[in-house]
Amino acid sequence: MNIGFIGLGRMGQGIAERLINHNHHVIGFDFNQAMCTQAQQLGVTIAQSIADIAQQTSIIWIMVPAGKPVDDVLEQLQQKLHPPSIIIDGGNSHFKDSIRRHDTLAQQHIAFLDCGTSGGLHGKEVGYSLMVGGDRQAYEQALPMVQSIAAPEGYAYMGPTGSGHYVKMVHNGIEYALLQAYAEGLHLLKDGHYKNLDLATITNVWNHGSIIRSWIMNLAHNIYKKDSSFNDISGAIGENKTGQWALEEAEQVKVPMDLLKKSLEIRTQSRQSGGNYATKLVALLRHEFGGHMVEKK
Amino acid sequence: MNIGFIGLGRMGQGIAERLINHNHHVIGFDFNQAMCTQAQQLGVTIAQSIADIAQQTSIIWIMVPAGKPVDDVLEQLQQKLHPPSIIIDGGNSHFKDSIRRHDTLAQQHIAFLDCGTSGGLHGKEVGYSLMVGGDRQAYEQALPMVQSIAAPEGYAYMGPTGSGHYVKMVHNGIEYALLQAYAEGLHLLKDGHYKNLDLATITNVWNHGSIIRSWIMNLAHNIYKKDSSFNDISGAIGENKTGQWALEEAEQVKVPMDLLKKSLEIRTQSRQSGGNYATKLVALLRHEFGGHMVEKK
Repeated sequence: MNIGFIGLGRMGQGIAERLINHNHHVIGFDFNQAMCTQAQQLGVTIAQSIADIAQQTSIIWIMVPAGKPVDDVLEQLQQKLHPPSIIIDGGNSHFKDSIRRHDTLAQQHIAFLDCGTSGGLHGKEVGYSLMVGGDRQAYEQALPMVQSIAAPEGYAYMGPTGSGHYVKMVHNGIEYALLQAYAEGLHLLKDGHYKNLDLATITNVWNHGSIIRSWIMNLAHNIYKKDSSFNDISGAIGENKTGQWALEEAEQVKVPMDLLKKSLEIRTQSRQSGGNYATKLVALLRHEFGGHMVEKK
Repeated sequence: MNIGFIGLGRMGQGIAERLINHNHHVIGFDFNQAMCTQAQQLGVTIAQSIADIAQQTSIIWIMVPAGKPVDDVLEQLQQKLHPPSIIIDGGNSHFKDSIRRHDTLAQQHIAFLDCGTSGGLHGKEVGYSLMVGGDRQAYEQALPMVQSIAAPEGYAYMGPTGSGHYVKMVHNGIEYALLQAYAEGLHLLKDGHYKNLDLATITNVWNHGSIIRSWIMNLAHNIYKKDSSFNDISGAIGENKTGQWALEEAEQVKVPMDLLKKSLEIRTQSRQSGGNYATKLVALLRHEFGGHMVEKK
């Protein structure tokens, strides 16, 4: 397929590379010239502008920060796109924004899919987990592209417009609590009754046969192979808005999400106080899977 | 090896079966005759008594409930064992009990290893995750047995006496919070903005390429392939004492474990109120990995 691609940051480049490896022709754009240069080296044909992409392709993946950047891109696209076209927002947009955007674009006969994308930097190799919402027919048309990006079995049609981003929002809410749960346990091993426990060994044992084995545990093991003191970094944990949105949605529909709530509080505190050993580990895990910045002390 | 085995319940049988499959000769005992009959069918030679095992073997695995049952078994064993012998407690004993027992047995030149064992019923096939504490020399002697029980790479020497059960206690503290984290998220998907989301499909997509993929997610997917309404069951979550112990230890050494604390509160409440959709899922997950009872409504 001829695929337009807007947003060639860390995640965007990984996705574009998978598309190229699956023999798609990717025509990409990013406002950041350095990102364009990197993407070009991966095989992306760099367009002059968003309008340029709109004129050359009829299926376009957007991978830009949630909020105004998405609206800006869509506004430029819809001025130049030739319907019928499909736009897929693979970022972390709020599901209600996705519903609004779908409805606006539908008036111009442009299809819009909202796609939750999980997998972080490692998705480039193993494939991403894709949760797609929107019109079923557009989903079917985008399927060759979706399958190229996704891990085997790592994609599905979720339901009506917004549901892809909704499911991803909930995914992120779970993720916040999982990271904190692992981190508080490893904090106890670090500062508890037994000194000098080997956390690299323990995370490896836990990852083979235990109830709590997981990909996050894999990442923890990668971290502990390098260091377990975390002396040089701050414990301030960053975040995007999806965790907060998940909690707001949960409160609105009266579903208790006490662990997410507590995890968000801990993150907020960590940015004020510099956190503790556990929040340092969460920051490092976020760096490990997503390349998110870890502050140096 | 000739291995004594005391406690042939669900977990014990799975472990004994692995030992037999690795060409060890297992001489077992359980006070429950039905368990002995089942174990016999797996190839376990059933002894007449604990004393009988003590006389026939010099390395013995104990898999009985924590607390008095362990002390009772040890008391009977130490009367009949011929030193040098090794006893391994593979159950969920408190690490301080393990230190006390080690020291008592050491006076009679009987080695004692404390082994945290994770993996639940599925460990029988894939192997268990084993965390072993105690005297290093005894560990080396027990290694052929440990390796037969464990998943590949799923075992290691943790450190001094008690550290095996300590690490397993922390493992369980993490497990409690992980189960609750997944469950509260899936609760939101069930009762949130989008009706009729297919949770079997979503847990499968999440298990391929996503940040939150894990063995627990595998189990959730197995549950959702069968049902997602959970109408017929109670949401009361059982527990053993390890989660509470982990929290007490954390409070003693001033490590915050807020997610574990909240998860324990939710479990306590669930037994009083019958819980909610999320606690039903936790109960089902516990059943899925450990065969723990789920109450019918």
